[in-house]
Amino acid sequence: MRRERGTRLTIACADRPGIVADVAGFLRDRGANIVHSDQHSTDPVGGRFFMRMEVMLPIEPAERAGFDQQFDERVARPAGMRWRISYPDDRPRIAILVSREDHCLFDLLWRRRREELDAEIVLVVSNHAHHGHDVTAFDVPFHHVPVDPGEKRRAEGELLQLLRGQVDLVVLARYMQILSGEFLEQLAVPVINIHHSFLPSFPGRGPYARAKKRGVKLIGATAHYVVEELDAGPIIEQDVLRVTHRDDIEHLEQLGRDIERAVLARAVRWHCEDRVLIDGNTTVVF
Amino acid sequence: MRRERGTRLTIACADRPGIVADVAGFLRDRGANIVHSDQHSTDPVGGRFFMRMEVMLPIEPAERAGFDQQFDERVARPAGMRWRISYPDDRPRIAILVSREDHCLFDLLWRRRREELDAEIVLVVSNHAHHGHDVTAFDVPFHHVPVDPGEKRRAEGELLQLLRGQVDLVVLARYMQILSGEFLEQLAVPVINIHHSFLPSFPGRGPYARAKKRGVKLIGATAHYVVEELDAGPIIEQDVLRVTHRDDIEHLEQLGRDIERAVLARAVRWHCEDRVLIDGNTTVVF
Amino acid sequence: MRRERGTRLTIACADRPGIVADVAGFLRDRGANIVHSDQHSTDPVGGRFFMRMEVMLPIEPAERAGFDQQFDERVARPAGMRWRISYPDDRPRIAILVSREDHCLFDLLWRRRREELDAEIVLVVSNHAHHGHDVTAFDVPFHHVPVDPGEKRRAEGELLQLLRGQVDLVVLARYMQILSGEFLEQLAVPVINIHHSFLPSFPGRGPYARAKKRGVKLIGATAHYVVEELDAGPIIEQDVLRVTHRDDIEHLEQLGRDIERAVLARAVRWHCEDRVLIDGNTTVVF
Amino acid sequence: MRRERGTRLTIACADRPGIVADVAGFLRDRGANIVHSDQHSTDPVGGRFFMRMEVMLPIEPAERAGFDQQFDERVARPAGMRWRISYPDDRPRIAILVSREDHCLFDLLWRRRREELDAEIVLVVSNHAHHGHDVTAFDVPFHHVPVDPGEKRRAEGELLQLLRGQVDLVVLARYMQILSGEFLEQLAVPVINIHHSFLPSFPGRGPYARAKKRGVKLIGATAHYVVEELDAGPIIEQDVLRVTHRDDIEHLEQLGRDIERAVLARAVRWHCEDRVLIDGNTTVVF
Repeated sequence: MRRERGTRLTIACADRPGIVADVAGFLRDRGANIVHSDQHSTDPVGGRFFMRMEVMLPIEPAERAGFDQQFDERVARPAGMRWRISYPDDRPRIAILVSREDHCLFDLLWRRRREELDAEIVLVVSNHAHHGHDVTAFDVPFHHVPVDPGEKRRAEGELLQLLRGQVDLVVLARYMQILSGEFLEQLAVPVINIHHSFLPSFPGRGPYARAKKRGVKLIGATAHYVVEELDAGPIIEQDVLRVTHRDDIEHLEQLGRDIERAVLARAVRWHCEDRVLIDGNTTVVF
Repeated sequence: MRRERGTRLTIACADRPGIVADVAGFLRDRGANIVHSDQHSTDPVGGRFFMRMEVMLPIEPAERAGFDQQFDERVARPAGMRWRISYPDDRPRIAILVSREDHCLFDLLWRRRREELDAEIVLVVSNHAHHGHDVTAFDVPFHHVPVDPGEKRRAEGELLQLLRGQVDLVVLARYMQILSGEFLEQLAVPVINIHHSFLPSFPGRGPYARAKKRGVKLIGATAHYVVEELDAGPIIEQDVLRVTHRDDIEHLEQLGRDIERAVLARAVRWHCEDRVLIDGNTTVVF
Repeated sequence: MRRERGTRLTIACADRPGIVADVAGFLRDRGANIVHSDQHSTDPVGGRFFMRMEVMLPIEPAERAGFDQQFDERVARPAGMRWRISYPDDRPRIAILVSREDHCLFDLLWRRRREELDAEIVLVVSNHAHHGHDVTAFDVPFHHVPVDPGEKRRAEGELLQLLRGQVDLVVLARYMQILSGEFLEQLAVPVINIHHSFLPSFPGRGPYARAKKRGVKLIGATAHYVVEELDAGPIIEQDVLRVTHRDDIEHLEQLGRDIERAVLARAVRWHCEDRVLIDGNTTVVF
Repeated sequence: MRRERGTRLTIACADRPGIVADVAGFLRDRGANIVHSDQHSTDPVGGRFFMRMEVMLPIEPAERAGFDQQFDERVARPAGMRWRISYPDDRPRIAILVSREDHCLFDLLWRRRREELDAEIVLVVSNHAHHGHDVTAFDVPFHHVPVDPGEKRRAEGELLQLLRGQVDLVVLARYMQILSGEFLEQLAVPVINIHHSFLPSFPGRGPYARAKKRGVKLIGATAHYVVEELDAGPIIEQDVLRVTHRDDIEHLEQLGRDIERAVLARAVRWHCEDRVLIDGNTTVVF
């Protein structure tokens, strides 16, 4: 978590003895010093193995392709690993999609400006026009892609034009349109959504009104990867806030905004720092 | 919240101007000093009004019946109030029902022994025999009422024999039998249950296993009044605990025990201190 | 906590029987409906009494001065009350003082813009020039008042010119200059500061570095009213965040910014909603 | 954190490249599978390195001494490591010292009975006689060692007789006697204390009264290793609880008991699971 970040390596594979020794030996032989390391095995017998390492790697940018290739051949492929190496100057490119509510959008833009987020925000897209002025004040391009009734297919096409190949991550910062399975497939990068309830409680629309009606004593927010089934993807982060009978729906929404932006910011930051590994419909967060 | 407690007055009625003035005037005219007061109106126009007062009331025990009658006639009845007065030496009598898991049971017994709970625990009943020795060490009577398959009706009859008219509150401290609507009706005192999830997430059986499967990042517990529909009654208190991918189901259960006993203890204490007023399917907790 | 706010009444006085009856009777006789009420007595015998009421008061703006006068004569003066009435359209005028760190400043400006804060931010003053552009984008005037070594007296004079009589509250949103006792006296309005530690731990400079050195497992922030003695005034709100050995000082500062802005925002909002009453060197927060 | 625990290895040494590779290679060559691993470097250049591994190690008990010796010779000594290996059936022997307040004592005894604690509680010692009956009901020996004024030296001698060589950990579960430096030195095992405040706030006596006086909005507890200087040792765990103006000192103490026992239980459990490594006056908690 220090600023002068190292090179990050994440791997996921079937668990078996010797994985750490193989990876650590490969790194030692190339002069790397492991600064942080986390690993998790879902079950030592027949389970899945996940690891994230941050290393100080004394190689030149020109040597990286070779390093990647050697790692793949000697370590990763024999063990059937999914893996990823992120070098110190690799910064994910993010697009933010947003509807009317802007608290998550501007929270991310401010964090980027304060360098709390190790990523570039390269694009903001909204189905409403009115955030344009405030977004461009951050020197970030803004696109208005309206989604008129019956025009969703056309709108998704327009979004794909803007996003495909341009970004490494899409963040739905209170974007109130449901994305189709085909769109997600063609987009082919992870999509993180913030849902304004503590899932699996109150999926779908109007969670604060339903929380008020049920009389819960805590309200929450959930950041998760988007899959085709609504509000069902792998959860990255959740948090809650205490409420009382005195808080009406409008006030729940106001309080909820604080927890939504905090939860989304953590999820996006952890994703950009390669801390989140997907394990079926759940996540391992290192 | 001080030990030398005062007299407590709780009221619920349709909201209209002048209620506080009427109540406070009645009390002032009898020399009472209001130490704490909380009130809540769900809506100043056409809403419900709830109030809890703690007062220092300089009357003798022999005068209480007269005081109650005057309050009813002059203040409560004209305004259509539900009301309740609890004098400094009134202590609710509690029965605890429990199955195999004993962490909530012994937490309540210890709190009672440390005088954290302003109530008497007069009875523990279990569908298993094996807590008998430990319970009687607290000088609390223990009854074993087995619930064999097909014998639920007979078991509920036996429970009613033990409980009806003997207690002011029944606490289900991880009692894993579902109580019938008829039983609840004949029992005719409030029943508080601890559910081992953050309701409305994971109602019913096996909430920790389902939480693990869904990959939630917080687990919780919910204390609620029991109604005939399972896990649907008014919520009194909830709390949560952060968990990670490293916690297997067994460990979730272990962590959960701490949050369950804390949440149940708060709910029972607040109920015994007349802090919990029911508003339809929700609660006002002062 | 609803948006269509009522009229607020706060009082503080020596406790004695009948205060609530007197206040509630006065209000009832003028057709007022009490929507919320909180009260607290530090000790029913010889203690201090605090009350906050929110009422629906059916009088015209022109009648307010008369209402205030009657309340003062008939209720407040006989009981020796400090009191304050805030009508539905009364909005406190706030000045924000800030140094280099801008996270609290912009959090407050955004909250004001989203109408989460029932107040006007009429002025931002900084001892650094560089926030000017971003502040004026919120249509709030910005003043640069440098504080050069040996020039503190002159700078405080300049601040007094800007603030005296113009504002009802001054917020130190990470303003790193110590204000003199004379300045506070002449300013004559409350000043709220955010300190970046969980006071009384780590008062003074460099709290995150000292927290790291001591190895605490939680870091926090404290919002308090400013008195002449540094970091010693009545505490309004505090909160904490879990940290680990992995967080270096720079990362503690980054995490701390989230907790600082949340704590300061709550303190300012509660102050503006007349929820905070001072009791010696502590506060009652309703 | 699973019940069928593996073998645990902890190491601490000066950081340098290749440590993980050396350890993991040594383990792989002996057929071990690493189930969990955590590591931390205070600084990749010139810092300290800490690691905790849990491994499935297919060796017989008779082979352990040889394994330890080989690890020491081939891996640990060349790198100047402090290290410790704990085999699956190694269970630390704990003595609990307690004064009048018994909530932490009985919480630990209950957790042990529910097998939440991977340790044996072999002895309870108190400077008061009255917990004897309740402790022996848990089949744990109880000793009364009074500490009369002027007799502290004699009492410490008696304690040393009971503890030295008999236990691996001493837990001060609200033991209100200060232990001398000589005693700690001769005891020669770690001592964990629970302090009833959020250190470094309110060290020494009467922390709740001082918290009330200062008007803090959160109270806390701190579990730390004991060093000669009072309340100054390395902190293992801390937590806090929200309080208000309504809580008097007696109620703060009551609320505090919940947080004290929770914090102490976590610290003891983590210590027994070899999760706590000492780094100067701070801890690394894996």
